[in-house]
Amino acid sequence: MIIVLRPNSTSEQIDHVLERIKDLGFKAHLSRGELRTIVGVIGDENKLQAEPLLAIPGVEQVLPILKPFKLASRELHREDSAVQVGKVRIGGGSLGMIAGPCAIENAQVLDTIAGRVKAAGANILRGGAFKPRTSPYSFQGLGEEGLKILRAAGDKHGMPVVTEIMDPRQVELVFRYADMFQIGARNMQNFDLLKEVGQTRKPVLLKRGMSATVKDLLMSAEYILSEGNPQVVLCERGIRSFEDSTRNMLDLSAVPNVKGQSHLPIIVDPSHATGRPDLIPAMARASIAAGADGVHVEVHSCPEKALSDGPQALLPDQYATLMADLRKLAGLVGKTM
Amino acid sequence: MIIVLRPNSTSEQIDHVLERIKDLGFKAHLSRGELRTIVGVIGDENKLQAEPLLAIPGVEQVLPILKPFKLASRELHREDSAVQVGKVRIGGGSLGMIAGPCAIENAQVLDTIAGRVKAAGANILRGGAFKPRTSPYSFQGLGEEGLKILRAAGDKHGMPVVTEIMDPRQVELVFRYADMFQIGARNMQNFDLLKEVGQTRKPVLLKRGMSATVKDLLMSAEYILSEGNPQVVLCERGIRSFEDSTRNMLDLSAVPNVKGQSHLPIIVDPSHATGRPDLIPAMARASIAAGADGVHVEVHSCPEKALSDGPQALLPDQYATLMADLRKLAGLVGKTM
Amino acid sequence: MIIVLRPNSTSEQIDHVLERIKDLGFKAHLSRGELRTIVGVIGDENKLQAEPLLAIPGVEQVLPILKPFKLASRELHREDSAVQVGKVRIGGGSLGMIAGPCAIENAQVLDTIAGRVKAAGANILRGGAFKPRTSPYSFQGLGEEGLKILRAAGDKHGMPVVTEIMDPRQVELVFRYADMFQIGARNMQNFDLLKEVGQTRKPVLLKRGMSATVKDLLMSAEYILSEGNPQVVLCERGIRSFEDSTRNMLDLSAVPNVKGQSHLPIIVDPSHATGRPDLIPAMARASIAAGADGVHVEVHSCPEKALSDGPQALLPDQYATLMADLRKLAGLVGKTM
Amino acid sequence: MIIVLRPNSTSEQIDHVLERIKDLGFKAHLSRGELRTIVGVIGDENKLQAEPLLAIPGVEQVLPILKPFKLASRELHREDSAVQVGKVRIGGGSLGMIAGPCAIENAQVLDTIAGRVKAAGANILRGGAFKPRTSPYSFQGLGEEGLKILRAAGDKHGMPVVTEIMDPRQVELVFRYADMFQIGARNMQNFDLLKEVGQTRKPVLLKRGMSATVKDLLMSAEYILSEGNPQVVLCERGIRSFEDSTRNMLDLSAVPNVKGQSHLPIIVDPSHATGRPDLIPAMARASIAAGADGVHVEVHSCPEKALSDGPQALLPDQYATLMADLRKLAGLVGKTM
Repeated sequence: MIIVLRPNSTSEQIDHVLERIKDLGFKAHLSRGELRTIVGVIGDENKLQAEPLLAIPGVEQVLPILKPFKLASRELHREDSAVQVGKVRIGGGSLGMIAGPCAIENAQVLDTIAGRVKAAGANILRGGAFKPRTSPYSFQGLGEEGLKILRAAGDKHGMPVVTEIMDPRQVELVFRYADMFQIGARNMQNFDLLKEVGQTRKPVLLKRGMSATVKDLLMSAEYILSEGNPQVVLCERGIRSFEDSTRNMLDLSAVPNVKGQSHLPIIVDPSHATGRPDLIPAMARASIAAGADGVHVEVHSCPEKALSDGPQALLPDQYATLMADLRKLAGLVGKTM
Repeated sequence: MIIVLRPNSTSEQIDHVLERIKDLGFKAHLSRGELRTIVGVIGDENKLQAEPLLAIPGVEQVLPILKPFKLASRELHREDSAVQVGKVRIGGGSLGMIAGPCAIENAQVLDTIAGRVKAAGANILRGGAFKPRTSPYSFQGLGEEGLKILRAAGDKHGMPVVTEIMDPRQVELVFRYADMFQIGARNMQNFDLLKEVGQTRKPVLLKRGMSATVKDLLMSAEYILSEGNPQVVLCERGIRSFEDSTRNMLDLSAVPNVKGQSHLPIIVDPSHATGRPDLIPAMARASIAAGADGVHVEVHSCPEKALSDGPQALLPDQYATLMADLRKLAGLVGKTM
Repeated sequence: MIIVLRPNSTSEQIDHVLERIKDLGFKAHLSRGELRTIVGVIGDENKLQAEPLLAIPGVEQVLPILKPFKLASRELHREDSAVQVGKVRIGGGSLGMIAGPCAIENAQVLDTIAGRVKAAGANILRGGAFKPRTSPYSFQGLGEEGLKILRAAGDKHGMPVVTEIMDPRQVELVFRYADMFQIGARNMQNFDLLKEVGQTRKPVLLKRGMSATVKDLLMSAEYILSEGNPQVVLCERGIRSFEDSTRNMLDLSAVPNVKGQSHLPIIVDPSHATGRPDLIPAMARASIAAGADGVHVEVHSCPEKALSDGPQALLPDQYATLMADLRKLAGLVGKTM
Repeated sequence: MIIVLRPNSTSEQIDHVLERIKDLGFKAHLSRGELRTIVGVIGDENKLQAEPLLAIPGVEQVLPILKPFKLASRELHREDSAVQVGKVRIGGGSLGMIAGPCAIENAQVLDTIAGRVKAAGANILRGGAFKPRTSPYSFQGLGEEGLKILRAAGDKHGMPVVTEIMDPRQVELVFRYADMFQIGARNMQNFDLLKEVGQTRKPVLLKRGMSATVKDLLMSAEYILSEGNPQVVLCERGIRSFEDSTRNMLDLSAVPNVKGQSHLPIIVDPSHATGRPDLIPAMARASIAAGADGVHVEVHSCPEKALSDGPQALLPDQYATLMADLRKLAGLVGKTM
């Protein structure tokens, strides 16, 4: 940690800064430049980052030099992690191809979709039983009834299942039916929920929040990891920007960016990122080329009658065509589905 | 609702669109232009907005013409609402001046701060017992112990108290101690939490999320209102932007923007919006001049030892100076504290 | 164009709206809904979009239904365009692989770099003689001396050359030395400059501005096209966002987004978009997989001594490795270098 | 300047870093922490910031500790500057109240508007003769004819005039007619234009770019100042954000933010920032309360027939009402019009 003092800081202020650092159990190292005096602070920076050093009179800037996450960091865990979801492995060269409808609507529609995406090569089935909808007047999901339908479809078609959880009180219920929890973008910083799934030993798909930096995403993963659950898969699904022709702005650079700093697997969701079926296939191909550990795509057999997010779903045939492309790309980058 | 068809849409597609609209119980009105055919849809637009019309083959754009919120809207409730928090009224010409530390640390520190802000003119005391911290290694709040300290300080100094709630399981506990729930920015779209506080009859301070539009904020208020709780005060506290010299970007235009569309009161939090004590007074003054129904400011008697967000707190003396300015401004714009 | 009237608009206001539309030479079509009255306007929408209809009393919203660009649009020009730069073709299945240093520093350095990127497979040489630098105290480029060095290096290594132009007064000079003009992000809406290069018949590489939507980019292309120069190649190079670990936010979805609306070729510049050599190769691969018509990469033989943007340049060896990957990907997506 | 080395940097790399710093004429100061080695660099940081230190092998971060602008900085010029435009002073307690139409349309319309805004208390007349329009098909301004009309109206009503300049070739022409140059948001980083107006001795109104940070704005001012022209007034006019209900996002915190770092005056333009007449008065009031040195408002006597930006103009009566409010506020904050 480097503390930069104001140009007009007094010697009393400098002494006070040095004293505060000593009180906190750290060593200070003073250096006077032409225009600024700076103080290097030596000790456990993670502990130091919690202190309000910037509030000490005379301090102009506080410059951290270490990353604020530990368990998610590649510094202490150099090889790629892989996460096991039922029989499917995500990471370490294996791709998690997650597909299914936005919301679970009824057993028949889900069965049809599950059969089609399985045939196309998907290896994990998705579907929402609890839906975070912007409007209280929109369809909010089938709840436990939906979880049963999802479990049955997964079992019938031989696919592990992932579903969103929005409330810490749902953990026990969802735990019984699903193979993987999904934490949605709106709950990426719902810290009580993160702690709760961190106390289980079930894999978690953690989606990036719409206003979260890559560092914020890794800090939220750290919440889950620090509770003892190492099974975290990150998901890039777009951030909010001024571009109004797509639903969100897909930050594909997050894939190599995360991989440089963290050992955790990361997949991409081009469906929510773009909100446009005409852009999803190109962005799914780009994701694999960028090094993602999988792709999450919404598929519906009749988008115009879907109860949630129909306009952004691919048709089963479009998904099958896309998967054929992705299989070739996967080979080229040395990955297997 | 206006549906715009693609330039090359077939007559089968057009017929199918008209049929879908009829099936959904609405009336369609076809109009052929030189380059585009458009369909006007007549009926309850709130119901219609939940339908995936954009997914119907041949449809290019769907243009809503009504706002998607009802209870929060000024269209059906033309006069300003006021919310009663203990003896304090927010809205309708009365200013809610909320002040206190970021986190509740211990009884003595809070008592000191409460006495100082009360003397300066604050009328509601704030303090966090459950803290949403980006890092799992930061101070997470004192929990129920903190709530007791807050209640005691409020009672001693004659101020109603507001505190943040992060988890639906805390509603009952916080209900017993606080006069107003605060929903923080990170939980603005934690819909289960919104529903839960909506089922109480206690006022709610709802902060705008960092990636939320004004419309999103009003939709989240609608969740609370639609559960039967009309006591909602909105709070602008900055959105995320590329400007890196302030913590967030204060959107002060949200104040008149909300007031044009909604009857709900709105206050401003310049502390979180800027994260800089040197900017807070100017932004607090600007808030009152812009028509806000109050200002929320973090105050700490010793920021450099605060357990949370010390660097953005005002000192009690700075707060007193600011309040003197705000009192004059309030008079000028016809408001009372 | 659809005009939505306010709920309380008077019949005088409605009559006035209809009269204004008639005065402007268009036909109006009135439709009364339950809560709103709307007016459809029939006629040349491009002409209509210039009119301040929103300023007419009683008008609440004006909803355009057509895109505001014509010559850049795919509606009137359905096949992909290709642009010829010297012997190199960009678009229509041919990839433009542009490489070189940020700034031209001297003949020897550029000769070395040109030889290396040519050997790796680059087909167009880039280098800046006029540099847009944020600080007036940074290196501003060699000017005409730099142009001569660039021309000589291009001729020696058999590559057409592209260089940035910042000022309409430089058009004549740069025209004599370069095979392609580059308009940088900061000048994307320098309309006088756009008009000036639009009056030449030399290809233009038009980079997206940091706060420009895809529509804004296409409108700027329209400026060049409408002056008579059809040789425009677009370039996605990142927009500004809150993510602070990359220089800009690469919007790779812009590639299929542009291709859906426009016939113009589009390439990607991962160097400026990310500012990080560790992310450039993954983003270059993703660009080709997403359907881009080429990639623009900064390469320097000694980044730590570069006079501009050294930290974001690839080394020649890194570029050669990347090009080997891109060649395989190009084959997969049916493109040739 | 602080250089942070990678955790695994070799002693050869460290030696090489020290050598490079010595070669560049600076002194290095090595400090080994538990997890990182850091190097303090002592010498003229402005010169050092131009060097690509981040590209040296083994370097992880480069942390500047000084601001990159000098002439615009308050560090070397502690008192507020005031800029003289004709008989009007902006800054140092005097407010510049700029008003007029977006574009100059004809002598009669401008005369009417000028008379009305003068009567309401405006002290500088604005009007555009060269218009930066997103579409090549929109009205582009009257050119020199417009400048003549503007000059005549200013002279008749006793107001200095300000008008936008977009092209370095227009400097001589505009110089003859106007009292102040305006550099628009789209040209804030048109560095050739900045240099050109910097070589005159006429005041410049420099508007913040839509993707510019406050630091970027001050760096662009530095371009003008470093050419020898000290007469720069900054203007906050909104940045680009995801909020789609206003034209831009007004960053009012830029006012105290600039004032803390720079001695230059800063005014606010709520017309372009919001694009909505219903929000302009509240934002103008907030600007004065925040400490701005003036307000720039577009006024038109018949917005629905304006040739440019009609929907965002205030009517003369609305402007007069607003000015009455602003006069009271000015008194309260100790400023004069």
